[in-house]
Amino acid sequence: MDMGINLKQLAAELKLSTSTVSRALHDSHEISTETKQRVREMAEKLSYQPNPYASSLRKQKSKTIALVIPEIDNNFFTLAINGIEEIAQKKNYHVLIYLTHEDINKEIAIAKHLLSGRVDGILISVTSQTAEIEHLTTLYSTGIPIVFFDRICDQIDTAKITTDDYDSGFKATHHLIEAGCKNIAYLQVSETLSISKKRFAGFKEALHKKNIPLQTDLVLTCAESNESNYEQIKNLLLSKNRPDGIFASVEKLAITTYEVCNELGIKIPDQVKVISFSNLATAPLLNPSLSTITQPAFDIGKKAAEVIFNIIEHRAVEEAKETTILKSTLISRDSTK
Amino acid sequence: MDMGINLKQLAAELKLSTSTVSRALHDSHEISTETKQRVREMAEKLSYQPNPYASSLRKQKSKTIALVIPEIDNNFFTLAINGIEEIAQKKNYHVLIYLTHEDINKEIAIAKHLLSGRVDGILISVTSQTAEIEHLTTLYSTGIPIVFFDRICDQIDTAKITTDDYDSGFKATHHLIEAGCKNIAYLQVSETLSISKKRFAGFKEALHKKNIPLQTDLVLTCAESNESNYEQIKNLLLSKNRPDGIFASVEKLAITTYEVCNELGIKIPDQVKVISFSNLATAPLLNPSLSTITQPAFDIGKKAAEVIFNIIEHRAVEEAKETTILKSTLISRDSTK
Repeated sequence: MDMGINLKQLAAELKLSTSTVSRALHDSHEISTETKQRVREMAEKLSYQPNPYASSLRKQKSKTIALVIPEIDNNFFTLAINGIEEIAQKKNYHVLIYLTHEDINKEIAIAKHLLSGRVDGILISVTSQTAEIEHLTTLYSTGIPIVFFDRICDQIDTAKITTDDYDSGFKATHHLIEAGCKNIAYLQVSETLSISKKRFAGFKEALHKKNIPLQTDLVLTCAESNESNYEQIKNLLLSKNRPDGIFASVEKLAITTYEVCNELGIKIPDQVKVISFSNLATAPLLNPSLSTITQPAFDIGKKAAEVIFNIIEHRAVEEAKETTILKSTLISRDSTK
Repeated sequence: MDMGINLKQLAAELKLSTSTVSRALHDSHEISTETKQRVREMAEKLSYQPNPYASSLRKQKSKTIALVIPEIDNNFFTLAINGIEEIAQKKNYHVLIYLTHEDINKEIAIAKHLLSGRVDGILISVTSQTAEIEHLTTLYSTGIPIVFFDRICDQIDTAKITTDDYDSGFKATHHLIEAGCKNIAYLQVSETLSISKKRFAGFKEALHKKNIPLQTDLVLTCAESNESNYEQIKNLLLSKNRPDGIFASVEKLAITTYEVCNELGIKIPDQVKVISFSNLATAPLLNPSLSTITQPAFDIGKKAAEVIFNIIEHRAVEEAKETTILKSTLISRDSTK
């Protein structure tokens, strides 16, 4: 069967981006009448037809949503998945889980794959490398419902479910200051992620309020492998300017901090206090028990799923643009005593 | 468009099971010539046609495999998923993750859904409730490649990837006996699961070798909610016949044991020693650090994926029946000192 050319080939022929062509074919107001005309003519000439598999699904619904997340060995995401599944199973939908492994190229490949229209909606939490977002705006331009959760893209005007990252960053830092810390380190996995920036802004504000100067050598971006994260944190704890408090903005960096302290014989909380964003089930059982900023991960997943089904089933236009913030809780344990 | 009737309706009309009808249509040697003839005639009469969506995928390959697992908040499965993904991404395949949440009814519903032929192959680890397996034999009878990993079904003659459950059960128990335990409890999530039975057999043999009698009141099946598991383990530790050693055959029961000991003020390892099957990243950081039987979870996932792609791509008939055993490691830490 001759299927004609696909979107990519059509775009190449027109010397336009697939995003522009897709929007033109969807009669987007962002595209000029002239361009729309040119695209339609070329589409007809080259007998372009939208992926038949995709359109058949569009009509009959695939009853599947995609969930795109950076990693699976992270308790925030496993709990969020359980929340998403709870709603999806009630709705009789299947959840297709895609892992990007924090790799922007995998995220781009997945976004391209999703352009084919296999799914009725997409829940996404972006990678720590996601600064350029053309692959996401392209996807968004096709009209498929998209909901961001946790790691959101502020630039895209769709529904977002997140926690109070700024306030939580402030509270965690304030908690370390109240516990007597003066030399506080901030550990993050990205400088560009929206949630990293908000947590860091909260950190800076808490220091500022207590007239504690920000020391840039105490701000660590651990964006590579677990091994290199380990070395970076080890160097931090061996440096002359050793921190007396550490705020890990993601769970795995707190675990690495514990491992490094074990190796170096540094006592938590006597020599360094530690607090972390974390949904670790074993946080209360660690030696010492870990103080945490605990996100309502299950509820964030549930809410993200509820919103996407409202958009899919009821074309909930208002909800499709809303940002929902579910608050995190500070739980003080022995690591900050 | 009139699509005729589906497999289920056809089976109802014939008063046969969908499994039998499916096998008859696939010309299985298990079905008599007479039945095959009857099925084909009725199929023609009622204009039955296989799900068109399914057959189009069968021909062009969906480039998707399904992964069916009982839970996601379990480090064995998150590591296995990463192993599976590593291979799938190289092969340019997508992995559709289905969670059964240890619920046999969800597993049956998922198996029915997969009958529609959305995927090119299925990797599965069954629920703790899976004793009846008709839904799996039906799926298997359609000819779709299936590989079991970890929680396997011994009765189905397909590829299986597992660890040395019997030997590991023996070693863990022997380790507790060597550490001085005489009153050893065994905690499991199921009495019917193949891996539970093998681990338990190893446990019994290790006791037997040292002439320690098996005490049935020290064998706990924790098959309900986390709350009820907590109560069961608490009752065990409050009983007159309190164990001086606990062997948890799954990770979450070790975590619950730690929580109960914390509440009751029972000291690990002085009052009770604990060892567990576990891939917990924080096992070395717990208070006290947890002795574990650690499965090669990542490699088990990788191997399961390699085998299924060999079956899908090369019709590897031999491999499709093989059982592969990847050995676990006993790591002794403070909880058994």
